[in-house]
Order: sequence, then structure tokens, then C-alpha cells
Amino acid sequence: MINRKKGIIMSEWRKKIRVGIIGGARASGKSLEAANRVGRLIAGKGAILVCGGLGGVMEAAARGAEEEGGLTVGILPGNKPSDANPHIDIPIATCMGYSRNSLVAMNSDVLIAVDGEYGTLSEIAFGCIFGKKVIGLGTWDIPGVTPAQTPEEAVDLALKSL
Amino acid sequence: MINRKKGIIMSEWRKKIRVGIIGGARASGKSLEAANRVGRLIAGKGAILVCGGLGGVMEAAARGAEEEGGLTVGILPGNKPSDANPHIDIPIATCMGYSRNSLVAMNSDVLIAVDGEYGTLSEIAFGCIFGKKVIGLGTWDIPGVTPAQTPEEAVDLALKSL
Amino acid sequence: MINRKKGIIMSEWRKKIRVGIIGGARASGKSLEAANRVGRLIAGKGAILVCGGLGGVMEAAARGAEEEGGLTVGILPGNKPSDANPHIDIPIATCMGYSRNSLVAMNSDVLIAVDGEYGTLSEIAFGCIFGKKVIGLGTWDIPGVTPAQTPEEAVDLALKSL
Amino acid sequence: MINRKKGIIMSEWRKKIRVGIIGGARASGKSLEAANRVGRLIAGKGAILVCGGLGGVMEAAARGAEEEGGLTVGILPGNKPSDANPHIDIPIATCMGYSRNSLVAMNSDVLIAVDGEYGTLSEIAFGCIFGKKVIGLGTWDIPGVTPAQTPEEAVDLALKSL
Repeated sequence: MINRKKGIIMSEWRKKIRVGIIGGARASGKSLEAANRVGRLIAGKGAILVCGGLGGVMEAAARGAEEEGGLTVGILPGNKPSDANPHIDIPIATCMGYSRNSLVAMNSDVLIAVDGEYGTLSEIAFGCIFGKKVIGLGTWDIPGVTPAQTPEEAVDLALKSL
Repeated sequence: MINRKKGIIMSEWRKKIRVGIIGGARASGKSLEAANRVGRLIAGKGAILVCGGLGGVMEAAARGAEEEGGLTVGILPGNKPSDANPHIDIPIATCMGYSRNSLVAMNSDVLIAVDGEYGTLSEIAFGCIFGKKVIGLGTWDIPGVTPAQTPEEAVDLALKSL
Repeated sequence: MINRKKGIIMSEWRKKIRVGIIGGARASGKSLEAANRVGRLIAGKGAILVCGGLGGVMEAAARGAEEEGGLTVGILPGNKPSDANPHIDIPIATCMGYSRNSLVAMNSDVLIAVDGEYGTLSEIAFGCIFGKKVIGLGTWDIPGVTPAQTPEEAVDLALKSL
Repeated sequence: MINRKKGIIMSEWRKKIRVGIIGGARASGKSLEAANRVGRLIAGKGAILVCGGLGGVMEAAARGAEEEGGLTVGILPGNKPSDANPHIDIPIATCMGYSRNSLVAMNSDVLIAVDGEYGTLSEIAFGCIFGKKVIGLGTWDIPGVTPAQTPEEAVDLALKSL
């Protein structure tokens, strides 16, 4: 690939790690803070953030990544790219409803779950089906989820697993 | 609706309860026996059996339903209706891979999980997302799953919930 | 498979031909009449009718099949089986919107297009992609569609192609 | 949104036009040249190129966009982002097979069809369903496709339609 894209080396994009952040559209202030911190750390490490593109944990994490200059991809349940939260750079509409949860897992190299309910549980399950490492921050305590205590530990565990 | 379909009153089909059986393609002999019994009981109650259409728990349950003269629907991950196990009457190919797990939940009025791994976990999660009751027989012990001890109890709990 | 299902030989279901009827939700009275006649003929030949499950051509054809005692499968864009028109025996919700058009083609052995606009065109295209014969009645006049002049000819061409 | 992403103003990404290039995986040398030129022109205008991520027209167009420093999104039929051709910056795996064709249309503001067979026809149909302008270069000559004679005219017509 070539190197004359405006201001950045585009060929590097495919080499970048993609970290999926999963978690509920509704979350506590504490979870949103954690998600934001996770997003900042991911971007700070040069990884792309993948998420479901909507509100709550997804938006907090994308905002964090944006604040650190990272790239964010949002895989949306609806049929309009414009449904994405304002911190998503590349919105992908699927018109699949909750079935799109599998695509979030499929398009991530590793997953970090923050808080979350059954939507998040489905994404954890898909992560495990697809052989992806799943790190958990205050989320479902089930086999297949490696618990972390802090955003720093979560991102550290995620990136070290690759 | 009309009443002159060959030997059965077709208008009744839409009134029938649809019970989804979820569980792994690989399962222990004991789980397969339980699934078979669940399938028999569902058909015996006049309900339609919905499942993922492949082997293991899905096949054992469909065989049970068939043995009792019930109707079986298999919602398949691949693109060929002929992928379905031989006990599926109405195979539906989706070409969605594991994303089709949401369709199994979406097309069932209530779910019974037998054994199972992460695929089953994703179906349990979708069942909960869609507000369906999920009964468990030797499966994931998580909030949202109502445990049963026997196939009889599982089917009883499932049908009473509607 | 076994032979003691109530009143019908269930094992026969998998041997039945599945004819997909595609066409618009909005259609002229003449097209609806043709669709109804096609549905009747398909059921009269013992084939299963597959369609998109909603109104217009889909409903007229399903009503025709029902009037002849046939079985009808409706593959729906929404997430509720109850969205199906009243003449659908086996509704399958997909929550895929128009992407479900590929599933109608995938689950039919042969397709008959009646009238229709761009939704129908996408189904014709999927039929051709999947190597299915597509018969047309007053629909898109493009390579890949074998035109018929009457419902009788359409069903005849469809069944003879298998 | 914020303005301190490395070297580019990320907030601009959501404002960028997304042009979908559709066309066959197999295409003539002349069509590949046209696709390459279309890709170059799109990137030169600052638009994002969206395509199906595989070979033929998709690859030629993505290569063209890359040569001009543009960003390319590939929406793939399989379940592996790594299936994308080497000129795709943001691969999105869907595991939907040909059903993903609707997502290419859904995620484009306007479509340019180059050559192509039935897969392209399905994407043209989805474009029309979703109300997107479809420009054609040596592709299906049907209502809904605005023909262009050259890559320059195609890109010009596409961008002027927005």
C-alpha cells in the first residue's frame, strides 16, 4: 500500500488492532466513566475502537477514543448511518437489530465488556464463539470472561492477549 | 381461514404455541435423551418445535417431536435448506452463520435450553432481550434462566408461562 | 421419518417443492388476481408456497394457496411473526428489513415474480445468484427472467424446470 | 467533536460523502480500468469509498482510491475482516453472504455501478429501495440507473446528485 494519504500513513490501518467495547445503552455514571477511560486508553495505544455505535457505554467509550485522537467504528442496529453517536467516525448501518451484536464481536480482535445486560451477554457469547478474548469490567461474571479491576488493567489484558 | 387443507385444519397453525429448543450441536448422551423427551412433550402438547436445525440437542429434540407427530421448524446458519437434520419439516436457510441465533429466539414464544455452550448462551441472551421466558435444563445458570429438573418440568414451566 | 403425524404423513414435507412468489406489497387488481391464481395452482400441485409474508402479491398468493389447502411460509422483514398476513401458516421473523429478500430466494426451489418494483428486482437478482429459475408474470423484463403469459403457464414452467 | 486527532481533523469524517462502488468480482480489463479511475476520482473529491471489499471492480476501485489517499470501507460477505482486498482500510465482516449487498447500498450516499452481473443488480435494486441515486457505467440498463459514459461523468453525476 501507499503512503501519500493526507497526513497519515493509511497502509497502517489494516495493521492496527481493533478493540471492541461492549456494554449497555443504559449504564451508571461509574460505568460510563470507566468506558470513557477504556476508550482513551485504547486510542492512546493506537488501536481502533469498535462498538455498537449507540449511547451509554458505546458513546462514552467512543468519546474517550475521540478525545485521544483515535478512530472509532460503530456497527449499528438500524438502517441509517446517521443513527450513530457523534463520536463515531465510521458508522456502519446493518438493519439487523440485535442480530448485529455478532458483527461487533466478529470485527474485533479482542473485546472489553463494561457493565451491560443481555445485549452485552450476547456479545460476550459471540466473542467466545469466535474465539476472541473477552475482558470484563463490572460485567457478567461467567466462564469466558477474564475480569479486570480497572480500565488500565482491562486494556492491558486485552492488548497483551493478542 | 379455511378448513379444507388435507386432513388438518390449517388455520390452527397460527394459533399454535412455538417452543424453541436451544442447545449445543455437541452434547452428552444424557442431554440428548433429555432433549428428545422435551421434543416429544412439546409435540404431545400440540406445540410447534423451533430450533437451529442442525445436530446434537437440535436433532434429538426434533426427532422427539417427529416421533409424536409434531411439526418442526429449523432455522439454519447455512444457505441450504437441505443442511437440516432429517427430523426438520420446515427448514429455513439464513446464510447468517451464528447471527441466526437471534432468529431462533425471535420465532419462539418461549425457550427451553438444554445443555449447551456459547451458542446456547447467545440464544439465552436473545431470548431475554426479546422478553421471552427461558427455561433451563442442565444449562447456563445465570439470571434470566428458570431452572427445571426434568424435561416434564421444563415443558410444564414453558407452557404455563404463556 | 415416521408416519404417525396427525392425519398427514409429515415425512413428505421435506420432499415437497417450495415455490417462491415474489412481488410488490402494492399491486394492481389484475396482478393480485394473477398472484391469487398462482397461489392456488401451486397448492393444487402439492407444493409449499414461500413468500415475504406481507401484503399485496404476497398476501394474494398466500390466500390462493390457503384456499387450495396448501402450506404457506412467510419470511418477514420485521421482528414479529405476527406481522404476517393471515394466510401465512409458518411466519418466520428475521428483523433484517429488505435484506431478508435474499432469504426468500434461498428458501425456494424456483421463483415466480408477479408485477413488483425494486424489492422484487432484488429477489429476482438473488434468485439468479443462487441459480434458481425465475419465471415472470408482468414483471421485470431482464435477462434471467423467463416470461410467462398466464398463471397456468408460470406454474407450469416453474414446476417443469425442477 | 474535537480537533486534535493526529494529523487529520477527525470530526470531518462524518461530514464526508460516502460513494458506493458496486460491480462484479469478475470484470473485463476495461471495466477494471474504469473502476480504478472512478476510485481515484472519488478519493480526489474527498469522499469515502464504500464497496463489497473483495476482488474485481471492488478491488480496482479501492486501489484507485488508495492511490489518491482516500479512505476505503469494505463490507464483506464472509466472517473474517482479513478477507478484504489489500486496498481496503476498514474491512467490515458480516457473515451474511450475498445478503450483505443491502448493507453496501445502505451505507452509501450514492452508488456507481461498473459492469456487474446479478450481485450488482441486487445492489442496484437495494440502492433504489433505499432512495439512493444509482449511476451506471457499462452496467444494467434498467429504470433507476442513470447511465454515464465515462468515469468522470459518473463521479460528477454522483456528487452533483447529493
